[in-house]
Amino acid sequence: MIKAGIIGGAGYTGLELIRLLLMHPKVKISVVTSRRYKGKPISDVNPHLFPFIELEYEDVDTKEIADRSDIVFVAVPHGSAMDYVPELMARGARVIDLSADYRLKKEDYERIYKREHKDKDKEKRGAVYGLTELHPEVADADLVANPGCYPTGAILAVTPLVKEGMVNQVIFDAKSGISGAGVEPSEISHFPNLAENIIPYQVTAHRHVAEMRMELRVKVSFTPHVIPSIRGILTTAHVFLNTKEAKTKPLQSLRGRGAEPHNEEIEGIYKQFYEGKRFIRLKKGMPSLSSVRGTNFCDIGFEIEEKSNRIVVISAIDNLIKGGSGQAIQNMNVMFGFDEGEGLWFPGLVP
Amino acid sequence: MIKAGIIGGAGYTGLELIRLLLMHPKVKISVVTSRRYKGKPISDVNPHLFPFIELEYEDVDTKEIADRSDIVFVAVPHGSAMDYVPELMARGARVIDLSADYRLKKEDYERIYKREHKDKDKEKRGAVYGLTELHPEVADADLVANPGCYPTGAILAVTPLVKEGMVNQVIFDAKSGISGAGVEPSEISHFPNLAENIIPYQVTAHRHVAEMRMELRVKVSFTPHVIPSIRGILTTAHVFLNTKEAKTKPLQSLRGRGAEPHNEEIEGIYKQFYEGKRFIRLKKGMPSLSSVRGTNFCDIGFEIEEKSNRIVVISAIDNLIKGGSGQAIQNMNVMFGFDEGEGLWFPGLVP
Amino acid sequence: MIKAGIIGGAGYTGLELIRLLLMHPKVKISVVTSRRYKGKPISDVNPHLFPFIELEYEDVDTKEIADRSDIVFVAVPHGSAMDYVPELMARGARVIDLSADYRLKKEDYERIYKREHKDKDKEKRGAVYGLTELHPEVADADLVANPGCYPTGAILAVTPLVKEGMVNQVIFDAKSGISGAGVEPSEISHFPNLAENIIPYQVTAHRHVAEMRMELRVKVSFTPHVIPSIRGILTTAHVFLNTKEAKTKPLQSLRGRGAEPHNEEIEGIYKQFYEGKRFIRLKKGMPSLSSVRGTNFCDIGFEIEEKSNRIVVISAIDNLIKGGSGQAIQNMNVMFGFDEGEGLWFPGLVP
Amino acid sequence: MIKAGIIGGAGYTGLELIRLLLMHPKVKISVVTSRRYKGKPISDVNPHLFPFIELEYEDVDTKEIADRSDIVFVAVPHGSAMDYVPELMARGARVIDLSADYRLKKEDYERIYKREHKDKDKEKRGAVYGLTELHPEVADADLVANPGCYPTGAILAVTPLVKEGMVNQVIFDAKSGISGAGVEPSEISHFPNLAENIIPYQVTAHRHVAEMRMELRVKVSFTPHVIPSIRGILTTAHVFLNTKEAKTKPLQSLRGRGAEPHNEEIEGIYKQFYEGKRFIRLKKGMPSLSSVRGTNFCDIGFEIEEKSNRIVVISAIDNLIKGGSGQAIQNMNVMFGFDEGEGLWFPGLVP
Repeated sequence: MIKAGIIGGAGYTGLELIRLLLMHPKVKISVVTSRRYKGKPISDVNPHLFPFIELEYEDVDTKEIADRSDIVFVAVPHGSAMDYVPELMARGARVIDLSADYRLKKEDYERIYKREHKDKDKEKRGAVYGLTELHPEVADADLVANPGCYPTGAILAVTPLVKEGMVNQVIFDAKSGISGAGVEPSEISHFPNLAENIIPYQVTAHRHVAEMRMELRVKVSFTPHVIPSIRGILTTAHVFLNTKEAKTKPLQSLRGRGAEPHNEEIEGIYKQFYEGKRFIRLKKGMPSLSSVRGTNFCDIGFEIEEKSNRIVVISAIDNLIKGGSGQAIQNMNVMFGFDEGEGLWFPGLVP
Repeated sequence: MIKAGIIGGAGYTGLELIRLLLMHPKVKISVVTSRRYKGKPISDVNPHLFPFIELEYEDVDTKEIADRSDIVFVAVPHGSAMDYVPELMARGARVIDLSADYRLKKEDYERIYKREHKDKDKEKRGAVYGLTELHPEVADADLVANPGCYPTGAILAVTPLVKEGMVNQVIFDAKSGISGAGVEPSEISHFPNLAENIIPYQVTAHRHVAEMRMELRVKVSFTPHVIPSIRGILTTAHVFLNTKEAKTKPLQSLRGRGAEPHNEEIEGIYKQFYEGKRFIRLKKGMPSLSSVRGTNFCDIGFEIEEKSNRIVVISAIDNLIKGGSGQAIQNMNVMFGFDEGEGLWFPGLVP
Repeated sequence: MIKAGIIGGAGYTGLELIRLLLMHPKVKISVVTSRRYKGKPISDVNPHLFPFIELEYEDVDTKEIADRSDIVFVAVPHGSAMDYVPELMARGARVIDLSADYRLKKEDYERIYKREHKDKDKEKRGAVYGLTELHPEVADADLVANPGCYPTGAILAVTPLVKEGMVNQVIFDAKSGISGAGVEPSEISHFPNLAENIIPYQVTAHRHVAEMRMELRVKVSFTPHVIPSIRGILTTAHVFLNTKEAKTKPLQSLRGRGAEPHNEEIEGIYKQFYEGKRFIRLKKGMPSLSSVRGTNFCDIGFEIEEKSNRIVVISAIDNLIKGGSGQAIQNMNVMFGFDEGEGLWFPGLVP
Repeated sequence: MIKAGIIGGAGYTGLELIRLLLMHPKVKISVVTSRRYKGKPISDVNPHLFPFIELEYEDVDTKEIADRSDIVFVAVPHGSAMDYVPELMARGARVIDLSADYRLKKEDYERIYKREHKDKDKEKRGAVYGLTELHPEVADADLVANPGCYPTGAILAVTPLVKEGMVNQVIFDAKSGISGAGVEPSEISHFPNLAENIIPYQVTAHRHVAEMRMELRVKVSFTPHVIPSIRGILTTAHVFLNTKEAKTKPLQSLRGRGAEPHNEEIEGIYKQFYEGKRFIRLKKGMPSLSSVRGTNFCDIGFEIEEKSNRIVVISAIDNLIKGGSGQAIQNMNVMFGFDEGEGLWFPGLVP
């Protein structure tokens, strides 16, 4: 049993960490912090966790958190995580940061998040971008920068094609449940505003696009929308194949045959790439949110547009699990040599 | 490891049994039947179960099902279960019937369900009504009649008061998610008909009232509604206290004091009655569906109306779990001497 | 054309007044106030009203509002309306107050709303309780106290039976869309909290019960819930017939016959009582929210419980229209001698 | 007053025609057909229309319909409309066909809808594609082919840019309410399947793309999704500007300046193009479904991606009104010389 601490345990990310870790056979939650709810039993504030957790929210200093934990999940907003990470690492705790603070290069971070990065040694910490399926080096990391929810669904959807050199440009049109906006009531989460609606926002300049570009290194655009659902992100990737490539390897084969071979070829690329990756499920048809609700899966399907260089690839994740706390635990499993699916291997809540 | 068979594995009840049993450490699913999907892999028809189950739907005879199972869950519609139960029992399988076929006395069944009961030995089979918290004799039963979804929430809400002799009459006003109406599309489940709506139905004569009356033996009325949610039943019990009793024990005390003692007394009654019943959670405030979503819990809260003989007791369950397949597994646990919470002891999916 | 002013035009009640009055052929909106949005075009703040209204929100003194209006709708919170009404009336404007400030007797108001009533002449003002179908004296009123949303649906549901002397007690179990909670985001209106849920609140002591008791003068209990819908209130009235009466007129007839006559008798009572009341629609089956969405209708249906003294009567209204701004305009129509349905006579938005 | 007949009055399209025409001051509904409900009062089958319409559904022959109508709306499925149109026109009725039967060239229709076009004189009928804002020749048409719901939102979103010669390619990623799938319950409209979900379908090959290509004559792709809402289509148009053009007129100006001027230029193009088109509302921010719910508006907003040739244009319509029956009535208004907004000029149902 390892000891896990959670900094920021009252938001959706923190709560989902608690819920999932309570079912993890090899982890004991050692400390959960919340300034707002300091001293209150966690299961009083969050009755769905009763009687599974007896801890109270604490407001203790970073050193103590490190001392009481083998692994610390930092689940505070962007800009605050960097206040904790240096000291946690100095005291020997391994860290999974669920904020954006360690995902990007310092200069990119400062430009995009419009704030100075206060951790002087940011670049030396060797943070690994924790998209578990793509970064096996998570295993040896002391600091994992857990990916954003949108980048998780987007990057997983197209990486196999990108790695084949087939992709020229991708438009990610994403649709997210509102839980991604957090636990605090707001205009956009006000039921009369969101029910019977779908709300586009930051349609050309959402900050998450930076992670997608960093990982994919092709031309990427990203347009998010909020849908009237609690959980889930469906990412529709409009993939434009590389016409230069088309003249050489992959596209030639794509173009030179009838419809069936196309599908087989693309399917083959995905199958090979995700061989052994248990949380990626390739679908015959199109995925939707239902099958992934409450799970750590990323479901992926695709369809090739006829007489075109466009492939539509669609991925579905639970934004709070594979898009957040679940992937963090998946990373923890890899870091500590546990089975990758430990505590995460269960089917979704359908219907 | 015991072997569990499921007759009728393509409806919501059967699917929920599969989903939950897959996470049960002491059970192996041995056979799942479906005439419609015979020969198809279960996880093809229900992609959320991939890759957790490798079985195909089968259409085998009852004897074989019995022979391949220690326990058989019968998850077929009312009127069909009685076609299976006699032979299953004759071949030595223990049975949990999730239909209404063995819940009521034969005469009541035939009157209410408007059909003849084909099992000649119905009354001799010793079926136990499987409201686990109230019927410990489940432990020794070979046939458990698993309660209806509405009766589960209703009966658990008021039994402690009824057993105290305090209750004269109860109006159950229940609000259910639409999954209770089953997997087949229908007028009432058509999204444009149900969204932004609430639909009352069978407002004085729903068949489930018979189970409530059988168990409670007080004056009971029942009015159900369907709400635009997938899962959950919230039961608002308008409880009228017994005015005869009022002159003697409980109500005198209720009437003779200020508001606070009232609450303490009622709370005491519930606490004592449900002592050790892990799946009953008494709430300080009012329960709602969120905390029980995806769980086997029944949350209960109450409020005493001032200057009145009415108490409002509200219970919340997940209709497919505590109101169906979860309670069936809870009964199985008791029948086989497992821990009551085995495979069912996890918090709800919040948010 | 009469001139209508609206005090408090940025909440749901005020906005619905604007939307409906814009379609009214005999009314011109003369002034709309909002301290928060003073100086901003109304259709900038509320883009659904573009380009129908060119006015800006104003923050002018009460005298001026009165001078610029024939009728003033006061759509501010309870406790604030009484700051405006005296001066409006003194300046000769007729007033429809949509708050609770003039609905109850002063002593009841002060007890229930837990505040002093600042209008010294409150009782002399002759405020008429504006349940239009029940209070024709609205026609001559200078001050109409527009009913609460819950009381509207509840009182209309059972008044015909009450007036017959048949009713001993009523339990109103009401289910409301969340728009009743107002335009401001809150815990209860936070989408992840309300979706897939139903939330009971103030289950024995909601303030609206006082209006029901005032109008019905029988034993009344009231338990509200919020459902995951934007608009609508479905009120399930569990009506207990008067057993004393039962021995004499109505119940004898109810009891002495088969099922059909019962229905005919009750139906007859409703038809006669609501004869000529165009906004009351008696249903063969049970009403639901769909048919009344976006309308000023109150749909009513009933079912008699067999072998019982209980009748279930169900009413459905749009809480913001018949339960608020629509009824206010209906009252205005009556006050000014317009056709009662002027500006309100259209079918609902189905689907 | 003109007389309007409706062929196929029991589906959502027909019902919406009825609802809207009932509020139209210059139209009288003369006949409504439905084989299924022949002889039944329309307001019995559709209680939200009570007591606004006294007609019964009829099943009369086409000649009679024509004789009793000045204008006939054909609201039957694709493939059936062509059974009625020739005879209706032969008898002198003007026709608005809401199916796809007269939208495309015969050869395109037959290829895409995979059926023979039975109307021998199809091409001679001079059907006008009824996107009212773009086809003023509707005024003189005897046959209007009313556009599909998706094409309406898509084409309106980008036509101003296309007409400027600026557009190289468009990806339409559309999100529709489920009412577009019709009045019949189905797998996709089953509440437990759609709630908390978003479902992509026909992601590269939806038939509506043909209308978009016909009207826009640029490279068009189209990917639709169903969202858990009743009404509305939000179309996210990912517009790729013409890089050839970029070197000359519009894009040079786009590229040669800072961000602000870009916006002004694009805004200017839209404003000029839609000058005087009352049902097009250009938004400062992004549109969403709320403001157009229950209306004939098409709201449009855009955002220019930095350092890119992509503009995101988003349009929002009510699929049953501007995307169907409302636009049909708008066309009728133009055909008969009425004010374009007659019967359609009202704000949306918000909240």
